[in-house]
Amino acid sequence: MSEWFTVRWVDGGVVLLDQRRLPGEECYLTLRDVEAVARAIEELAVRGAPAIGCTAALGVALAAATSPARELPELRRDVAAACERLAHTRPTAVNLFWALGRMREACERAADAPGADAAGVRDALLREAQSLVEEDVAICRRLGAAGAELVPDDARVLTHCNAGALATAGYGTALGVVRAAAEAGRKPQVLADETRPFLQGARLTAWELARDGIPVTVVTDGMAAHLMQRGEVDLVIVGADRIAANGDVANKIGTYGLAVLAARHELPFYVAAPRSTVDLDTPDGAAIPIEERGPAEVTHLAGQAIVPEGVPVRHPAFDVTPAELVTAIVTESGIVRAPFAEGLRALFRPPA
Amino acid sequence: MSEWFTVRWVDGGVVLLDQRRLPGEECYLTLRDVEAVARAIEELAVRGAPAIGCTAALGVALAAATSPARELPELRRDVAAACERLAHTRPTAVNLFWALGRMREACERAADAPGADAAGVRDALLREAQSLVEEDVAICRRLGAAGAELVPDDARVLTHCNAGALATAGYGTALGVVRAAAEAGRKPQVLADETRPFLQGARLTAWELARDGIPVTVVTDGMAAHLMQRGEVDLVIVGADRIAANGDVANKIGTYGLAVLAARHELPFYVAAPRSTVDLDTPDGAAIPIEERGPAEVTHLAGQAIVPEGVPVRHPAFDVTPAELVTAIVTESGIVRAPFAEGLRALFRPPA
Repeated sequence: MSEWFTVRWVDGGVVLLDQRRLPGEECYLTLRDVEAVARAIEELAVRGAPAIGCTAALGVALAAATSPARELPELRRDVAAACERLAHTRPTAVNLFWALGRMREACERAADAPGADAAGVRDALLREAQSLVEEDVAICRRLGAAGAELVPDDARVLTHCNAGALATAGYGTALGVVRAAAEAGRKPQVLADETRPFLQGARLTAWELARDGIPVTVVTDGMAAHLMQRGEVDLVIVGADRIAANGDVANKIGTYGLAVLAARHELPFYVAAPRSTVDLDTPDGAAIPIEERGPAEVTHLAGQAIVPEGVPVRHPAFDVTPAELVTAIVTESGIVRAPFAEGLRALFRPPA
Repeated sequence: MSEWFTVRWVDGGVVLLDQRRLPGEECYLTLRDVEAVARAIEELAVRGAPAIGCTAALGVALAAATSPARELPELRRDVAAACERLAHTRPTAVNLFWALGRMREACERAADAPGADAAGVRDALLREAQSLVEEDVAICRRLGAAGAELVPDDARVLTHCNAGALATAGYGTALGVVRAAAEAGRKPQVLADETRPFLQGARLTAWELARDGIPVTVVTDGMAAHLMQRGEVDLVIVGADRIAANGDVANKIGTYGLAVLAARHELPFYVAAPRSTVDLDTPDGAAIPIEERGPAEVTHLAGQAIVPEGVPVRHPAFDVTPAELVTAIVTESGIVRAPFAEGLRALFRPPA
């Protein structure tokens, strides 16, 4: 099978795999302006906290590349406007703001350098975005290697949503740990929650694991408790959209319930995320903004109404798992365990 | 709006609302032989433990009515064969076996009566099936009245699957309690789990409550934990497919997880079911057969594949909630609380 990718810079445009059309079609969108990039994020053509960060970074580089500005002040205004637009796409995943922060800094640095000109700033922004994308894959591989020790031989790993290659620039976070365990010969098997409403588990996790030859079985979200009760799950591992300073974890709606179930069945509940998902400025889960999406993702499936017309639905896209239910957080810098506040702070301390 | 119904005897046939086509279409199937009735049960045109029992009883009456037998032994053989066929439609809901037991007894009684003939047996079976259907509505109303006291003013009631009028001959069990509370002026509001894979909550619970003007909001199964965490749920009430002698409850897949979540959030978890759902011959949940259905209900939605081809799925249709997580069981004979073994036995003790 040919190599697929989540998001890349190709010939002056941002190219990404349209995840709304998986698993039926493998279709790449070419985005030629920042508004198209913003809409691709808003409309879930690309999703997953690290992948959103990478896409936004490439979107800023694209804004600079396509800006008609000849002078620096004008270019800086266009870059700032692009960052502003992209910052308003989705509120929960902190990687978006982290990536935009890096792009803003790169812009400042390049524009303030001696002899700076518009072309130099454009180049610097593209280099920064591309290295952010490359780093993301490397980070996932380090994270996976760090987490692989948590996965015993023949482990049956339950996961929720998609925290895989499709949610990052490649390899994945939760699925990166699974891939690293598979590469180490541990033969993990994945149980993928289908993850309503957007079905990232059924559509995306199943797709990418099947392509890698890692055994995967899809279950509906309501089956997880039953499988745990029957002893058919060994551990749970999920990604994260934002980890607060105290270790509370925002992730796809349904994650918190899984954590409660894992605790009842005395199963480890692991969160796998890069350091860019950790937000020390957010004290705890209560301070994490939870995105509410439109009703159509719940009321319609494959274009058909599944809820009677006029009946309201709820659509929080994320929930918060309190740190007390988290066994460990796996990052590219190693495994953090309780007390999380201390361990998470230590991730950002320069080595002595 | 015109009155709708779940299942009825009409002009020599069994007529039922095809629940697979709700909420899009209100379409009634007319079934003219027992094989068609069996298939309607197997293929979920009708579902819900009490409704399955009623439909099976009407199916036996239909088998007798359509049997070419002129003599009693031949008719008894045809009735026995119909019972056998219907008993193999679905394994978990005990109401099916209870209803078939009643029909077998009615057949014996009529056939063994002095001066019995085939026409008399046919009449007796039809009367028995029709009274079983009428009783079912009366039982649901008594059950609802008994349970209404558990529902405080303005309660936000979370339910799973459909334990409503559509799951019974009318009024419902879990939703019967909600209806009785609404009739008593308590203004309950229902949060309906959509209930994957078959979406009985999104399609059926929402449909019948909206028609009754009872406020209902649909949520995906993974949202329940989040709403409980936010204090947006006051109690959980579900139906049952079989209640074992020790109080363990088999119900739609996803119910057990809800019970664990209710316990964590210190919310009452009520089960509403007629006495015909209680099976004193089944000692505990481990002895309840759990139906596994075909993969297509999970892999396809509205005819579209949502899981990549070749990826396996699981499909247990029910799970078992241990009695320790059940706050109370509401029956037509009153509310049973722990110790359940004693309370459930007492339901069947003749009044002293």
